[in-house]
Amino acid sequence: MARAWHLKSRPTGMPTPDNFELKDLPATPLGDGQIRVRNLWLSVDPYMRGRMNDVKSYVPPFQLDQPMQGGAVGEVIESNNPGFAVGDKVMHMAGWRDEAVIGAESMPQKLPDLGVPLETWLGNLGLTGATAYFGLLKVAEAKAGDVVFVSAAAGAVGSAVVQIARNKGMTVIGSAGGADKCAWVKELGADACIDYKAGPVLPQLAKAAPDGIDVYFDNVGGEHLDAAFALAREWARFAICGMIDVYNDGKPQEMKYIIRTIPARIRMQGFIFTDYIQHMGEFQQEMGGWVAGGKMQSRETVHEGLEAMPDAFFGLFSGANTGKMLVRI
Amino acid sequence: MARAWHLKSRPTGMPTPDNFELKDLPATPLGDGQIRVRNLWLSVDPYMRGRMNDVKSYVPPFQLDQPMQGGAVGEVIESNNPGFAVGDKVMHMAGWRDEAVIGAESMPQKLPDLGVPLETWLGNLGLTGATAYFGLLKVAEAKAGDVVFVSAAAGAVGSAVVQIARNKGMTVIGSAGGADKCAWVKELGADACIDYKAGPVLPQLAKAAPDGIDVYFDNVGGEHLDAAFALAREWARFAICGMIDVYNDGKPQEMKYIIRTIPARIRMQGFIFTDYIQHMGEFQQEMGGWVAGGKMQSRETVHEGLEAMPDAFFGLFSGANTGKMLVRI
Repeated sequence: MARAWHLKSRPTGMPTPDNFELKDLPATPLGDGQIRVRNLWLSVDPYMRGRMNDVKSYVPPFQLDQPMQGGAVGEVIESNNPGFAVGDKVMHMAGWRDEAVIGAESMPQKLPDLGVPLETWLGNLGLTGATAYFGLLKVAEAKAGDVVFVSAAAGAVGSAVVQIARNKGMTVIGSAGGADKCAWVKELGADACIDYKAGPVLPQLAKAAPDGIDVYFDNVGGEHLDAAFALAREWARFAICGMIDVYNDGKPQEMKYIIRTIPARIRMQGFIFTDYIQHMGEFQQEMGGWVAGGKMQSRETVHEGLEAMPDAFFGLFSGANTGKMLVRI
Repeated sequence: MARAWHLKSRPTGMPTPDNFELKDLPATPLGDGQIRVRNLWLSVDPYMRGRMNDVKSYVPPFQLDQPMQGGAVGEVIESNNPGFAVGDKVMHMAGWRDEAVIGAESMPQKLPDLGVPLETWLGNLGLTGATAYFGLLKVAEAKAGDVVFVSAAAGAVGSAVVQIARNKGMTVIGSAGGADKCAWVKELGADACIDYKAGPVLPQLAKAAPDGIDVYFDNVGGEHLDAAFALAREWARFAICGMIDVYNDGKPQEMKYIIRTIPARIRMQGFIFTDYIQHMGEFQQEMGGWVAGGKMQSRETVHEGLEAMPDAFFGLFSGANTGKMLVRI
């Protein structure tokens, strides 16, 4: 019997186990064009928190008492679609469940065999890598020689940003929580890594970037964003990908240096990776080359079993993951 | 004997009369290419506060014990430059004084006779109007049909923004302090005007713009900027021209809605009018047509006499002006 995590109630603030319920799915025969997929890897991502609220946003909210969605990779076990054969590996958006009946609405994509682990398609080769690539290169228009600052640099998106920037000849300064994470960020090629748990961000960043920064890739908001305002050089570009510091608490952010937007002519731009979907081919080609050439490392923090999905998700907000947070079924 | 206001000491926080000193200028014979100008109108502008600090910025700081600079218009009374004749009216940057010896560094510009009052060249036809025009049309890329929100809408730049937006077929919502200023903003063609002294900005703006805003022209920062974050529609553009709320106090700004940068894909861009100087011809042609055609109203708050310069400047920060703040000599 297939099972899926359902949204039982909408969280206020930090989600709790009570907000979720693992329930059996009704047995469903395949419709025309549909495929049945046994999921092998499920993704949890910070943006899912937004979908738990009942507000209009760039992706529709999760519906109460319905299965939740998210990135997943799996194997086709039954097919009513001539484009997919039993045994094909696919990436799709019908996550949070162990088995899925999917049509076009779940955007299934057949995965070529690049000789990389299957879970890479939820990381550097997937939405995560594309978010890093589009944010850095399209939104912030970062180029060789730029000084790039990226927060949550040991996270899934951040660690990809660090390596793309390094591969493109930029100077990269990461920020991460703790010495172990910082050591890994430097292994990935960052020129420096700030440990935000060891002290305030601004003086550490000022030391790491004595001439200021050209680009800020924001995953967290708050103190990191304000430090970027403080140290932005003229014509700096900020790509705002996430503000995980405030997804749950919603408290006001104190911006002491936002006024530097004017003299430094900072451009701050929010984005969602789907805005740049027309560049997906370019991304897959360049990222595929880096992955095949050993120029993109990754780490995964893996939870085992469908039951572990909520815990994996909660861990995103406490910094429990290094690299991509995944659930293996 | 010519006299000029000198910066005696650098203010911390709100400037006081002690920071300024009116002193005689040494008699100076004209050098080659120079002209002597008797100033008739002097401009005071919020950006001058930044030049009183000793920090690297887009314009160099005022030097201690030296005459300050700023926009001025006057009449040529002696000329060593074949491009200028005695009696010519000129606009230039050697303000804060009653008589000026100027060369190319003060950017003198001979004024054509458009049949408008001379002080218009410090307002809608000058730096003020150009700032409004470039910010609205080049930085924010506002277009017909957009809903535009502008703060300090009864100020010099803000009142120009309101009218340019109206002339271009946009919906305009202004914000100003007090019923009298709001009445004038509506006379200028604003569809609505919020009185920020009568209550919080956000609920008033939500009522005036029930479907949100496409463009925010920021002159003040703080609560207004946060309300714009709260109500921005998808792909909204913010042109950040000034943050007069924090020029003097430098206190942190509480941004409760900055996280909407992501789902709404807001683009926030700081600017200085000189960044768009290549569009000056386009500005002068279009604005000249509006001024000549009666499509740009203006008000001036006028102080009399060179002695009044500091008071006129202080008044900018207490909302003492409607329209352009000027000193007539």
